[in-house]
Amino acid sequence: MSQGKRASEIAGYLQGRLVGDGSILIERIADLENAGPGSVAYVDNVKFFEVATASQATCLLVPIEALETVEFNSAAVIGLKHPKLGFARIAEVLHPPIVREPIIHDTAVIAETADIALSAYIGPHATVGEYARIGNNCRIEAGVVLGANVTIGDDCVLHPNVVLYDGISIGSRVILHAGVCIGADGFGYVRDDMGYHKFPQIGTVEIDDDVEIGAHTCIDRAALGKTRIGRGTKLDNMVHVGHNCDIGERVVIAAQTGISGSVVIEDDAVIGGQVGFGDHTRVQKGAIIGSKAGILPGKIVRPGVWWGIPVQPLDEYKRMNAHLGRLPQMREDLKELKARVKELEDKLR
Amino acid sequence: MSQGKRASEIAGYLQGRLVGDGSILIERIADLENAGPGSVAYVDNVKFFEVATASQATCLLVPIEALETVEFNSAAVIGLKHPKLGFARIAEVLHPPIVREPIIHDTAVIAETADIALSAYIGPHATVGEYARIGNNCRIEAGVVLGANVTIGDDCVLHPNVVLYDGISIGSRVILHAGVCIGADGFGYVRDDMGYHKFPQIGTVEIDDDVEIGAHTCIDRAALGKTRIGRGTKLDNMVHVGHNCDIGERVVIAAQTGISGSVVIEDDAVIGGQVGFGDHTRVQKGAIIGSKAGILPGKIVRPGVWWGIPVQPLDEYKRMNAHLGRLPQMREDLKELKARVKELEDKLR
Amino acid sequence: MSQGKRASEIAGYLQGRLVGDGSILIERIADLENAGPGSVAYVDNVKFFEVATASQATCLLVPIEALETVEFNSAAVIGLKHPKLGFARIAEVLHPPIVREPIIHDTAVIAETADIALSAYIGPHATVGEYARIGNNCRIEAGVVLGANVTIGDDCVLHPNVVLYDGISIGSRVILHAGVCIGADGFGYVRDDMGYHKFPQIGTVEIDDDVEIGAHTCIDRAALGKTRIGRGTKLDNMVHVGHNCDIGERVVIAAQTGISGSVVIEDDAVIGGQVGFGDHTRVQKGAIIGSKAGILPGKIVRPGVWWGIPVQPLDEYKRMNAHLGRLPQMREDLKELKARVKELEDKLR
Repeated sequence: MSQGKRASEIAGYLQGRLVGDGSILIERIADLENAGPGSVAYVDNVKFFEVATASQATCLLVPIEALETVEFNSAAVIGLKHPKLGFARIAEVLHPPIVREPIIHDTAVIAETADIALSAYIGPHATVGEYARIGNNCRIEAGVVLGANVTIGDDCVLHPNVVLYDGISIGSRVILHAGVCIGADGFGYVRDDMGYHKFPQIGTVEIDDDVEIGAHTCIDRAALGKTRIGRGTKLDNMVHVGHNCDIGERVVIAAQTGISGSVVIEDDAVIGGQVGFGDHTRVQKGAIIGSKAGILPGKIVRPGVWWGIPVQPLDEYKRMNAHLGRLPQMREDLKELKARVKELEDKLR
Repeated sequence: MSQGKRASEIAGYLQGRLVGDGSILIERIADLENAGPGSVAYVDNVKFFEVATASQATCLLVPIEALETVEFNSAAVIGLKHPKLGFARIAEVLHPPIVREPIIHDTAVIAETADIALSAYIGPHATVGEYARIGNNCRIEAGVVLGANVTIGDDCVLHPNVVLYDGISIGSRVILHAGVCIGADGFGYVRDDMGYHKFPQIGTVEIDDDVEIGAHTCIDRAALGKTRIGRGTKLDNMVHVGHNCDIGERVVIAAQTGISGSVVIEDDAVIGGQVGFGDHTRVQKGAIIGSKAGILPGKIVRPGVWWGIPVQPLDEYKRMNAHLGRLPQMREDLKELKARVKELEDKLR
Repeated sequence: MSQGKRASEIAGYLQGRLVGDGSILIERIADLENAGPGSVAYVDNVKFFEVATASQATCLLVPIEALETVEFNSAAVIGLKHPKLGFARIAEVLHPPIVREPIIHDTAVIAETADIALSAYIGPHATVGEYARIGNNCRIEAGVVLGANVTIGDDCVLHPNVVLYDGISIGSRVILHAGVCIGADGFGYVRDDMGYHKFPQIGTVEIDDDVEIGAHTCIDRAALGKTRIGRGTKLDNMVHVGHNCDIGERVVIAAQTGISGSVVIEDDAVIGGQVGFGDHTRVQKGAIIGSKAGILPGKIVRPGVWWGIPVQPLDEYKRMNAHLGRLPQMREDLKELKARVKELEDKLR
């Protein structure tokens, strides 16, 4: 943990407007309710202004326009355009990631031909294969297994028990949480009378810079060619990415979503949890897909908000649900109408 | 394995009523069909009484009232209020869990500041971080990685390759199956024009006593504060628990269910498999949620049985399904009615 | 990698009809678009014949009948009944799996009573328990943990960090991808006033020959008896198989599907991804179940194609969807009919 920052330093770093005591020392972040002396909290929603005024936080990050209109009680109040972003940025300063000594642990097994930066840390029981390359300041934690010809850029963190199969390539500033598995064979077989033959899975996986991947997520190698995860993309826990997928930049995918082979997800898409993609689907730039949606093979998902199984525009989904909700009334109407028609028929008989 | 128990000892231990030979030795448990000499089986359902009378089990646990009415053929028959519970309890006696020698394996890497009970077992290639504390009689199996400041109570079993990140705290009698991952960063980001900034994930996870967690389940640390799993709660394989969730006592959650951030599940809830929870939902005490259900963000799930996507009371779900089933008939009715109205109109023209 | 094969050798091995230069050397496989000199590609669909004629592949595997009708431009063209199967088979020859030196790595921990074939490879930080048996030519990669009394046949590959609990048995030519977990306790409890008691989980798991299991898939041991995966069956990543399941031969199960306890899946079934099975369901030989389907407990799924939650024959599912699509029109019709009946009533008043 750092030694803390003065409120004036925080205001300067975030380019915010400081009201109150700039000399006061801030040592940690906190939420509004649990904040105590020496902590900084944020509020970015009018709903929580009351909670914010009662907060014990020494320093408060608030929307710039609230500085004029609200009386906060913290010793230092900093007005910002985007207080939550400011909070995230100052958290990085007050709570910097762990730095390990640049050592290779005695128990790690390193191939002679591996090329490891002097500033990298390799933890206990890690295994590094032939011709693997590990960049500057990387933290390779306990039990990680790196295959032959793996390439890892600078400033990456691989948490315990991550497995990278042979030939996988990772950019810089990538975070892989515990148990992530990259490069296992894709799920492809050819059937004959006897059973299934393995379709070759000899491609690779490329992970670009600034990607973060949640615990136990599995990304399969391409059959031929490569599976790709673009720059700045974030995957949650236990996501499945099949062979030959191409996932763009700044895509967000929540937990337990499953992506079949050869799916393309373009930049800036947002995908909920437990979504399922049939193979060869394409999600266009900026599309948003709700949790638990199902996308049929080959489907193109255009920009907009999508929902349901099979996936449809959220508006249509809601309209259909409204129709469904009126079904009981429709049955009543139908019954009544039948009786009235019967009566008319009787009159005219 | 134990040396076995006499039928009279079993009856005494379970406080049941013994009929038959109390001196006979019972060495293992079995199901009705595969039971042989020396085994104990149970029956708790009238449907299976015929199978039970034909069973080769030496000892049979039966509902107390069946002692009077059914002629079982086993050498020893024990009447109990709850035969299945009795079976589970006697299984613990006849098949006690493995006990390891209290050693720290040569290949384990233990931080100097770690505090490990003399009665604990630490397996091959385990890694124990700075200031970690491990209680009495714990079994830490091969490849487990415990971060700094991890606390583990007494009598816990951590199966191979479990990962606990720094600062995680576990109660007593907790069982973590292979590959469980506790304390990875929650999935939270703040977006700006450039992409996603990591929202701080500096909270922790607390697991209470008597919790059992299935293989590869992942429980994320809180952003701020803590993620909690209450006493006696049981999670199946590959469950995802997001940051800041609060899961109560004696909750049961089946495999592959995904729980987004800040969800509250109160005591004694029962959750099926592959259920998905939006963030900030609350499940009230004793609610039962069927498999594959989907709960929208912020929803409160009251006591009762719930089903579907989005989740609704099971009764309503069934009623709606009945309406749906009558849709084809409704279309027929509508068509017929149109014809009749047409005919009436023609008559009156 | 092999030294390559001449086109005539490939034609002979696949028993195909060669047109063109049989002496030309083929060193690797490729897809049509990315193929270059020295590579073999395949085409098995008229749709791609144009791409195939433009391909730079030196050798092309094509449908036997296309030899007569299409002018391919590759130096060697081989006509086959099943070009994709031929491609898979020649890939095995051109890209044989890695062979490791038959050594036990210094850092592996092997129980004295374990019986390991001289031709097997045991990687860094692997752990092999008491009385475990490992067959010929097996590759046990880094960080694998094998419990006591585990049995593994010949020619198996266990990728890094696989965990087999005590007593699990694996056939020959089995591939387990990274992080596979076999033999964790099934999810079974008996409830009383105090909470949940563990139902005994003392059975085992048997995996037959030629099974391949994807990364992080978990297969639980039986409560009593055994959980079984039949010969030639293929499981994708993160599949959950509950206790006492019996899965037949040549079954294919896609990623993230969850199978509750005591489910029977007969031979040659095909199951999509993210499917959920209630306990005690039975899938009959040759049934096909679409992705994301949900099967209620105890259901019998007959041969044919099934879809939806709860699962129904695909035809019925489509018919119901068509009815749903006409709901808006039905409401219109109903409204119009009401007006007309009203008019008739007014006339007759």
